[in-house]
Amino acid sequence: MSRSTPVNQSLSQSASEPAAPAPADPAEDGFAWRRRHLLGLEDLSGEELLHIFRTAESFQEVSTRSVKKVPALRGRVVVNLFFEDSTRTRMSFTLAAQRLSADVLDFGAGKSSVSKGESLRDTVRNIEAMGVDTFVIRHSAPGAPLHITQCTNCHVVNAGDGQHEHPTQGLIDVFTIRERKGRIKGLNVAIVGDIAHSRVARSNFWGLTRLGANVTFVGPTTLVPRAFQEMGAKISHNLDDALRHADVVNMLRIQHERMTSAAFPSTQEYIRLFGLTRQRLQKAKPDVLIMHPGPINRGVELASDVADGPNSSILRQVSNGLAIRMAVLFLLNQTSNQEE
Amino acid sequence: MSRSTPVNQSLSQSASEPAAPAPADPAEDGFAWRRRHLLGLEDLSGEELLHIFRTAESFQEVSTRSVKKVPALRGRVVVNLFFEDSTRTRMSFTLAAQRLSADVLDFGAGKSSVSKGESLRDTVRNIEAMGVDTFVIRHSAPGAPLHITQCTNCHVVNAGDGQHEHPTQGLIDVFTIRERKGRIKGLNVAIVGDIAHSRVARSNFWGLTRLGANVTFVGPTTLVPRAFQEMGAKISHNLDDALRHADVVNMLRIQHERMTSAAFPSTQEYIRLFGLTRQRLQKAKPDVLIMHPGPINRGVELASDVADGPNSSILRQVSNGLAIRMAVLFLLNQTSNQEE
Amino acid sequence: MSRSTPVNQSLSQSASEPAAPAPADPAEDGFAWRRRHLLGLEDLSGEELLHIFRTAESFQEVSTRSVKKVPALRGRVVVNLFFEDSTRTRMSFTLAAQRLSADVLDFGAGKSSVSKGESLRDTVRNIEAMGVDTFVIRHSAPGAPLHITQCTNCHVVNAGDGQHEHPTQGLIDVFTIRERKGRIKGLNVAIVGDIAHSRVARSNFWGLTRLGANVTFVGPTTLVPRAFQEMGAKISHNLDDALRHADVVNMLRIQHERMTSAAFPSTQEYIRLFGLTRQRLQKAKPDVLIMHPGPINRGVELASDVADGPNSSILRQVSNGLAIRMAVLFLLNQTSNQEE
Repeated sequence: MSRSTPVNQSLSQSASEPAAPAPADPAEDGFAWRRRHLLGLEDLSGEELLHIFRTAESFQEVSTRSVKKVPALRGRVVVNLFFEDSTRTRMSFTLAAQRLSADVLDFGAGKSSVSKGESLRDTVRNIEAMGVDTFVIRHSAPGAPLHITQCTNCHVVNAGDGQHEHPTQGLIDVFTIRERKGRIKGLNVAIVGDIAHSRVARSNFWGLTRLGANVTFVGPTTLVPRAFQEMGAKISHNLDDALRHADVVNMLRIQHERMTSAAFPSTQEYIRLFGLTRQRLQKAKPDVLIMHPGPINRGVELASDVADGPNSSILRQVSNGLAIRMAVLFLLNQTSNQEE
Repeated sequence: MSRSTPVNQSLSQSASEPAAPAPADPAEDGFAWRRRHLLGLEDLSGEELLHIFRTAESFQEVSTRSVKKVPALRGRVVVNLFFEDSTRTRMSFTLAAQRLSADVLDFGAGKSSVSKGESLRDTVRNIEAMGVDTFVIRHSAPGAPLHITQCTNCHVVNAGDGQHEHPTQGLIDVFTIRERKGRIKGLNVAIVGDIAHSRVARSNFWGLTRLGANVTFVGPTTLVPRAFQEMGAKISHNLDDALRHADVVNMLRIQHERMTSAAFPSTQEYIRLFGLTRQRLQKAKPDVLIMHPGPINRGVELASDVADGPNSSILRQVSNGLAIRMAVLFLLNQTSNQEE
Repeated sequence: MSRSTPVNQSLSQSASEPAAPAPADPAEDGFAWRRRHLLGLEDLSGEELLHIFRTAESFQEVSTRSVKKVPALRGRVVVNLFFEDSTRTRMSFTLAAQRLSADVLDFGAGKSSVSKGESLRDTVRNIEAMGVDTFVIRHSAPGAPLHITQCTNCHVVNAGDGQHEHPTQGLIDVFTIRERKGRIKGLNVAIVGDIAHSRVARSNFWGLTRLGANVTFVGPTTLVPRAFQEMGAKISHNLDDALRHADVVNMLRIQHERMTSAAFPSTQEYIRLFGLTRQRLQKAKPDVLIMHPGPINRGVELASDVADGPNSSILRQVSNGLAIRMAVLFLLNQTSNQEE
């Protein structure tokens, strides 16, 4: 094809622009990232975790600019494939992708061909055929993101699959602890709430223990089964005990539907035993870090003044969410089909 | 951080681009805009109104280009926070933001964490933590936008709060009158319909009277309470009377739910007394300007041939909506946290 | 207006960028495209079809780049006006428009002013007044896109109107056949299924016959009325017969609602007579091309192994959908109001 007409000029113009997403290392740590997907933290090495964190640090600054954009993924397409609603997580991924100059499309599962009985595999392969690069998937079935990696050559990010993992939330939490405490190794981290059903607890556990923290799962016996000790966690059913030794307390959201089920007698009972109040906080170290993945039930698992107090890192977790998700989208898109 | 790798190059490349949103004055009137939020027209000075109008004039031309875009807000993020549905207003704000090269995100209140019981304050502070710049909010509660300004450092634009104000619609209407009539001062403007429940009527009133127009509220006694005289408006319950002196007639949309309530006996009765027909229009000045904020109930408050006739400025109001909203988003984003 | 302030500089900067969408000919065939709308294939000449195909070929390469973007429609606005849900078609148009650097807005008909009783004409004229360029419309009423061309100066693309036409799907199918078979002229194409209610069948028919193919409509008598012979198609109620001569078999999706209606006795009955299985495929030519517009009912009109087999072009149709829709949006936007 000759290059003489105005349109061809514009085509070639675009093609000759610096293609930002060529393999590169914003973290400047020399580590060669090779994963094409992020399915969970269980499989990640300490090296990989630290490389994501260093990449995220290099992106943190972008969100503080007035022009909050880098051209790293210009012309790439990220598709949000959310089979469970989550406005907040979807917004965070969307903003992260936009900040990398990618195009973002929401695939609303509710009204789509999925509801016409199409299989997940057909849905994914069809969207892939339109020329997209990355799927960000939330699904109620554990393993759905893994299944998708077997149907497509696109990159896959797990944005929460059933009770399995929510790896970007885990990364955000570990990253925020590291930022506030300067290290992970040797820290005592208490994760409090409905551990049995929490993918956030699992992803936190894998990330934290890989980097040398001690994790204690805290909650009523109905929500923290003894079986979790096999993973290597400590188990506690007494928040006051756990608070005394904790450097970090991560309060999980209690789902209303669980509170009214047989898991514990009443909301008031739960608050009395496992709600983090200012009074209870006095038993903890003065510099204990209070975390919550949001959205908070104020006055239930977390008292309002604690959530907004100086020990809280809740809004910082949200801000770091952008940097972590930018780092993940960026790193995965540096790899080619041949890798992994 | 050294600047040697491809990604760092692209980062620094972006950082070194001309940052368009530095303080500037496209209206070239030397007026120093200082407001960080637009909550209503009641508080705006005549100077401020005119500065918005002059800025809007400089943006009108952009929408007529084939490349309808200026880089003024590149890398900024505008979030539509609509707790009441309004496709049309939301589209207008979205297009205005895109035309300024901003990224736009819709926060759908229905399916979000709001429906999980999160407070407006927590919702707003969480989205803010993701690094956004401006909230455009529509809410059924008067004062909700003001409340948000107290929770966040972002800019806030009121896109309609209960029966309080809808300032951009007010600006659009006053701007359009000024464009068609060459002035505001001394004009007789009749606003006809359900004044009692109309935020559009209130915003029009404040903008028009600030610039010297005489405003008459016209409608049945049930929808135009005498109390409005205290604001400084004239009150009329007879459209034919009001038409005779009017330079401008702004016909509000009659909500179907009101028409079947106790507010007046029947739709036919309303049309007979307050519907603007071609026949009734003959009693008005030949150059009377007919306005409507849309969407029209054709054949109810406005006859079809009047809506489409030469006196109508209805589609021009829609076009001017883009320029006004571009001006508002642009001006607010020129101010920093320190101002106001 | 003088050009001295920073904002004016950015305005003029943008205005002076190369305006890519000036008349041009990426197909380099010297053909002068003149249509402002794409309503159906019935009216298109062979020349026009081939020009669209050659333009699409020049865009196919864009989707394989890592930076999948050309600046051809930068600053233009495409509005998806979908009155029937179709996630897949809407995504395809959205990605095509983004790949041309256009801004895209979805007008969700469900919750909009349409549901407040606004006419289609008023909706369209209002959106047009906001300064948009192209409407992509799907509507249950045949002729709705034609009606819109009479209300607006914008470009209109029919994305499916009732049982009338779905021209971009027709173009995709003919383009894919031409790509795989090297020609259209003289080919025997069997279109199988619910012909009576299918806009895809109609658009395929017009495109294929214009370029010299022989089209046979295949299905039960209730779904392939004799009246179709008047269009110039052959009619067959026996898939095995039709398969023997076919170079291409296009299997339409059977709507579940039709399968349970009086159109045929049962799903099993339909599968037995008109489902394309591997066994039945053995009666066809070895290089027969198997097509489906998607989404597939696996195991109903098409067996899974056939859909995924070497004769299938189903995913290629999806990929070509992007190139065809880019070509259509590009070509229409080259024409001005004065043409046609």
